[in-house]
Amino acid sequence: MNYPGGIKPKLAEDGNVNAKKKAKTGKIKPGNRGMDFEAGINETNAYYLEKGLCLIIKRPTPINVVSVDYTHGPKITSAYFETQSTTDYNGVYKGHYIDFEAKSTHSKTSFPLSNIPPQQIEHLERVLLHGGIAFFLIDFALLNEVYLLPAEDIIAFYKEKPRSSLPLSWVKEKGKLVKLGYRPRYDYLPLVESLFFPSLH
Amino acid sequence: MNYPGGIKPKLAEDGNVNAKKKAKTGKIKPGNRGMDFEAGINETNAYYLEKGLCLIIKRPTPINVVSVDYTHGPKITSAYFETQSTTDYNGVYKGHYIDFEAKSTHSKTSFPLSNIPPQQIEHLERVLLHGGIAFFLIDFALLNEVYLLPAEDIIAFYKEKPRSSLPLSWVKEKGKLVKLGYRPRYDYLPLVESLFFPSLH
Repeated sequence: MNYPGGIKPKLAEDGNVNAKKKAKTGKIKPGNRGMDFEAGINETNAYYLEKGLCLIIKRPTPINVVSVDYTHGPKITSAYFETQSTTDYNGVYKGHYIDFEAKSTHSKTSFPLSNIPPQQIEHLERVLLHGGIAFFLIDFALLNEVYLLPAEDIIAFYKEKPRSSLPLSWVKEKGKLVKLGYRPRYDYLPLVESLFFPSLH
Repeated sequence: MNYPGGIKPKLAEDGNVNAKKKAKTGKIKPGNRGMDFEAGINETNAYYLEKGLCLIIKRPTPINVVSVDYTHGPKITSAYFETQSTTDYNGVYKGHYIDFEAKSTHSKTSFPLSNIPPQQIEHLERVLLHGGIAFFLIDFALLNEVYLLPAEDIIAFYKEKPRSSLPLSWVKEKGKLVKLGYRPRYDYLPLVESLFFPSLH
């Protein structure tokens, strides 16, 4: 997800090809999971949108444009991918601001904190300060398990840094397992509802 | 604002230079206003963030990447600016989702609806459907006047289309005049408070 994921499907349609494969076989190959996690989140958000459940949008990957050729309309001839200074996803659910980052790891035992740039922690702290709902979706690709973790817990761990990675046991304790399926692929919204709208239950 | 505004300051620092000029003279030249509107909104949002009032972020301009050279790390060698399919700004204020588009016109009498792509109308309808706060900031550059208009009003006008542009009289009737100043440049937040949080007043 750190790599220019928003652009990838336009460079090569691997993501879509894999998605089609999966749709046919109904299986999710662990090896493809890391690559496909973002595509799956996007599909999930499209499903939620279609069902009128929430509006979550992926932020475009920021690109630093160095030179543009205006000969036949503006064409970028030199540019670099920039690191997202916020998170990949935000949007609205029942009027509330939602903000989250989706990360994938191939580790079977822990999630390395080095995957989270400091500016994302800072951004999520600001979201919480302003009353927004903030979390991570962490994909343990080889385990075929995705967890929703409140940003508060990860920020606290990040700051205390008892370890350089989040142990899976800690993730299981603090997080909620996301139900995986065909449509939606990663059904995280019921967890948002139960975790962040507790008064309604 | 439709043109790759997020990128402009990196192509040439005109925006910043103008901002500095203005800071020195304390005056806003009408001729620079269209170009500087986005920069002014960004400054305003930075001010609000610094003061802990809200968190509003400009979405990066989406770019369709055609080819990348990986010889010395990924360098984009061919790409095109895409039209923002949503709006330029979103964020969180007191837990609520905020979404708006900032547009500038050089007309002294009306705001042409052709400046609003249909997908922005569709996006703002979805924001409203999910309980978000949605509006436009419209800059009449030559009048030195900026108005906040609730998205609902503009969507209704856009759909009925009694005219192809919003007359200034209509804008004055439906909208609220934004207080202009040095810091913040465009003080729209008090209008958000009074329009969308009326129960507190």
